[in-house]
Amino acid sequence: MERGILVVTCPDRPGLISAVTSMLALHGTNVIEAEQHSEPTTDRFFMRVEFEPRGASFDAVASGMTALANQFEMEWKLRSSARPKRMAIFVSKYDHCLLDLVWRVRQGEIPAEIACIVSNHPDLQHVVEGFGLPFHHVAITKDNKAAQEEAELSLLRDYAVDFVVMARYMQILSPVFLDGFPMQVINVHHGLLPAFAGAKPYDQARDRGVKIIGATAHYATAVLDDGPIIDQEAVRVSHRDTVADMLQVGRDAERLVLARAVRAHSEERVFLDGRRTVVLG
Amino acid sequence: MERGILVVTCPDRPGLISAVTSMLALHGTNVIEAEQHSEPTTDRFFMRVEFEPRGASFDAVASGMTALANQFEMEWKLRSSARPKRMAIFVSKYDHCLLDLVWRVRQGEIPAEIACIVSNHPDLQHVVEGFGLPFHHVAITKDNKAAQEEAELSLLRDYAVDFVVMARYMQILSPVFLDGFPMQVINVHHGLLPAFAGAKPYDQARDRGVKIIGATAHYATAVLDDGPIIDQEAVRVSHRDTVADMLQVGRDAERLVLARAVRAHSEERVFLDGRRTVVLG
Amino acid sequence: MERGILVVTCPDRPGLISAVTSMLALHGTNVIEAEQHSEPTTDRFFMRVEFEPRGASFDAVASGMTALANQFEMEWKLRSSARPKRMAIFVSKYDHCLLDLVWRVRQGEIPAEIACIVSNHPDLQHVVEGFGLPFHHVAITKDNKAAQEEAELSLLRDYAVDFVVMARYMQILSPVFLDGFPMQVINVHHGLLPAFAGAKPYDQARDRGVKIIGATAHYATAVLDDGPIIDQEAVRVSHRDTVADMLQVGRDAERLVLARAVRAHSEERVFLDGRRTVVLG
Amino acid sequence: MERGILVVTCPDRPGLISAVTSMLALHGTNVIEAEQHSEPTTDRFFMRVEFEPRGASFDAVASGMTALANQFEMEWKLRSSARPKRMAIFVSKYDHCLLDLVWRVRQGEIPAEIACIVSNHPDLQHVVEGFGLPFHHVAITKDNKAAQEEAELSLLRDYAVDFVVMARYMQILSPVFLDGFPMQVINVHHGLLPAFAGAKPYDQARDRGVKIIGATAHYATAVLDDGPIIDQEAVRVSHRDTVADMLQVGRDAERLVLARAVRAHSEERVFLDGRRTVVLG
Repeated sequence: MERGILVVTCPDRPGLISAVTSMLALHGTNVIEAEQHSEPTTDRFFMRVEFEPRGASFDAVASGMTALANQFEMEWKLRSSARPKRMAIFVSKYDHCLLDLVWRVRQGEIPAEIACIVSNHPDLQHVVEGFGLPFHHVAITKDNKAAQEEAELSLLRDYAVDFVVMARYMQILSPVFLDGFPMQVINVHHGLLPAFAGAKPYDQARDRGVKIIGATAHYATAVLDDGPIIDQEAVRVSHRDTVADMLQVGRDAERLVLARAVRAHSEERVFLDGRRTVVLG
Repeated sequence: MERGILVVTCPDRPGLISAVTSMLALHGTNVIEAEQHSEPTTDRFFMRVEFEPRGASFDAVASGMTALANQFEMEWKLRSSARPKRMAIFVSKYDHCLLDLVWRVRQGEIPAEIACIVSNHPDLQHVVEGFGLPFHHVAITKDNKAAQEEAELSLLRDYAVDFVVMARYMQILSPVFLDGFPMQVINVHHGLLPAFAGAKPYDQARDRGVKIIGATAHYATAVLDDGPIIDQEAVRVSHRDTVADMLQVGRDAERLVLARAVRAHSEERVFLDGRRTVVLG
Repeated sequence: MERGILVVTCPDRPGLISAVTSMLALHGTNVIEAEQHSEPTTDRFFMRVEFEPRGASFDAVASGMTALANQFEMEWKLRSSARPKRMAIFVSKYDHCLLDLVWRVRQGEIPAEIACIVSNHPDLQHVVEGFGLPFHHVAITKDNKAAQEEAELSLLRDYAVDFVVMARYMQILSPVFLDGFPMQVINVHHGLLPAFAGAKPYDQARDRGVKIIGATAHYATAVLDDGPIIDQEAVRVSHRDTVADMLQVGRDAERLVLARAVRAHSEERVFLDGRRTVVLG
Repeated sequence: MERGILVVTCPDRPGLISAVTSMLALHGTNVIEAEQHSEPTTDRFFMRVEFEPRGASFDAVASGMTALANQFEMEWKLRSSARPKRMAIFVSKYDHCLLDLVWRVRQGEIPAEIACIVSNHPDLQHVVEGFGLPFHHVAITKDNKAAQEEAELSLLRDYAVDFVVMARYMQILSPVFLDGFPMQVINVHHGLLPAFAGAKPYDQARDRGVKIIGATAHYATAVLDDGPIIDQEAVRVSHRDTVADMLQVGRDAERLVLARAVRAHSEERVFLDGRRTVVLG
């Protein structure tokens, strides 16, 4: 059944929940789920409402929001669940996050469409095409990076992509690319950021002798492994675990945390508040 | 700073969040935290709002709620954070849950008052009085149980007690006693209910060879270890863990889960929905 | 590099670790990993040693063990890592555990071979054959169960299968079948056994209102969901989680716990001690 | 019942487990628990054995070890469980770790003796003396630090202290002090090191927007929050958790992780391997 998803953010002040839910009630919709957060450190208000239209048109609700937005300096977005977001998945050679995302989308766990797969290696072409999904091999070298990223951006426009998932894509996207999808590129890093940013986090972790490792899903920004964190997952290890053992349990953590982050992003649950995220619901 | 806590439950229907938050906005209050749940299996709506009065009187808000309650068949309760709930703690000989609760109340982690401690053994009298808290030894035998429970109920009335915490109280309270505090008696059981109800749950757990044990905080009802569950905590064990080892890690789980349940109950976060609980926030 | 895996169990008494490790040292092997357990409640000793042969023949080590076994009433088994165990996977229609096992075996996470897939439904034939694995559709009805199980046993003999994994196989295997693979049939149940044995465990869990659900991998026995537990995994839920939500997070728990159990079984880490398991390493 | 605890470390080579356990068997002891680790990156071997003497004298076992040590370049230590280690606890004003340690020692969870409490503030004197434990107020200022640390070291010698636990002691111990107790000073830091070392880790954590916080027990070294990690504990948080909320759940993590580390250290389970620890058992 079709649902509306309304997300709102504005300066915090009394009466905001009342204003939004009353407008929705006035149009005859039925709120299924509503969650909000008032952030004391930034005085921002965040709200996400999921509702059954019950005959109300999305245009009418949008008009209602336009009026409220003026009054309360709101930024807002209204979407129908009938038009899921479209993602591109960027991979290199590792397949675990890719397979997991494809399986979850097919299973209905993630309400989004996989528009295409892009890779700097041809290795996964066969498996991707076995799923009936488009695969594009865009080889990146030091010399052709700017041009190839331009080709990728063009591909993403052709496929009407809304956001990009770096499913263990072993390349750093340039600021130019990221500007094309601001805060719409989700990366997974196999460390509990900010610990062990950069290359070979499990080698770093074993060298430091930590007893807990993990994985982090975050929005990619121009600074490596520094963007707003969406979700994290921790795993207990011991002196017995070699780097190979960490890679093994780490893969499970990576695919879990990436799946949760992609689901939350697809369902419009993730808000930015400066460098932090607010994840509602 | 004083806050109002409003809890509401009623048959689910459109417009409920709007109705409650608009009434609160009308009176000039500021909502700090609001959470609600629509339960599809029972068609019940549950809501908890915490607000700053900003000059509004609690009487005025209560009048507003009375009007809404008629319209929407609401059951509701309004409390000021300035008047915390009062608990009695029932103990036998184990002290870990008792000490933990006393420490957390003093630390401000649990917004409630400890009115008195009741025990069927004198063992903990010294430590309780060292905290400056009243201790009452009410010895229970097979023959005097009815009379002694009557004495306990009388004590609780004298101390104006709102709810009872069985902090490893090794007695079963009779239905007569429980009728005096319906769904206001919190028990902690050292098993992941419904597994291992009854006596010696860790012996049962080791005999069955489980790899995960735990603890459960629940409302006591006339049927042993069968009441609505408020919170649970799981702990991984192995073949190496003896019953004594389980008791040790189990104590940590018990005090954590009991503290969370008592805090949630004190903050009016726990609603009953048949045999289940809805714990908001 | 080839390794020897030696597992030993016998009545507990002093000198057992010394006896086994001295015999291994005498033959010039190098112990990589050794773990043992003395169970106080049954007075049994359990030991698993993984060693580099360093030129020693497995026959010579086996002769050494034969001598020790007489002296200490030992039951023992010696295997080379060069000859991995062979498993058959039984499935119905759900694919998540199957896909996960196939992927982990290919990844090298589970040191075993998948000999064949058996199913009572044809649904997964295409995907299984896509992996280049043999698929056998053995439809079971009330009337043909005994004959069909005989056919399955015959298949398993043909494929030289060492153990069977029920990867969400929605049939109950008869005692006759299980006698053919005593304690070599691993099942996964989507409940934290002994809680919620039998059908629809998440419906049972939601009805009871628990706050922690989970999954259990265990050896199948003639009594449903009652066999020795190998591993368990717990997941926190709330009133918000519907049965469908539990199914979703439950699938992640099931595939993790089944993978760990199959790996431990493949590596000869699981010992039986009455109704319990000892899982070394 | 008295037990012997033997810990051994040496260059890795074949035959070590056999050598040690055979010597113990020869003297008629009964091994209750043995665990070892061969570290591939440093080629070191670590072993811990707990045994019932069964009439064997500790001197005889020590002689046996002396012979082995020469042959295998072993460092070793033999202790009787009848003579538990003695700890001093350093505190400032926070009492949660102190109370928890005192309770666990009395409960028998930690096999060690609390020799004395040292603090740079007088606040906890009353509660410490209520437990019948010696309290020493050693006020530290910028100007008197060297002299006061000398006084502390003198105290620790008087009390025959084996190791020091910094139970939220808000001072940095100087290298001179630490040289007096090399790798025998355990600190707890309320962050998942190496993340958020230094002051106000929860403020740092909230500023970075992490979804998992935690606590770390480690040996104190001359570099702040940089010593070998003994144990860690992770806790999930969300955008809703303020720094005050983190402090609250953090206290639970701190006392758990510190208790586990102090128990492991008291039981001689912690070995150093460069900058890492090996924690056996």
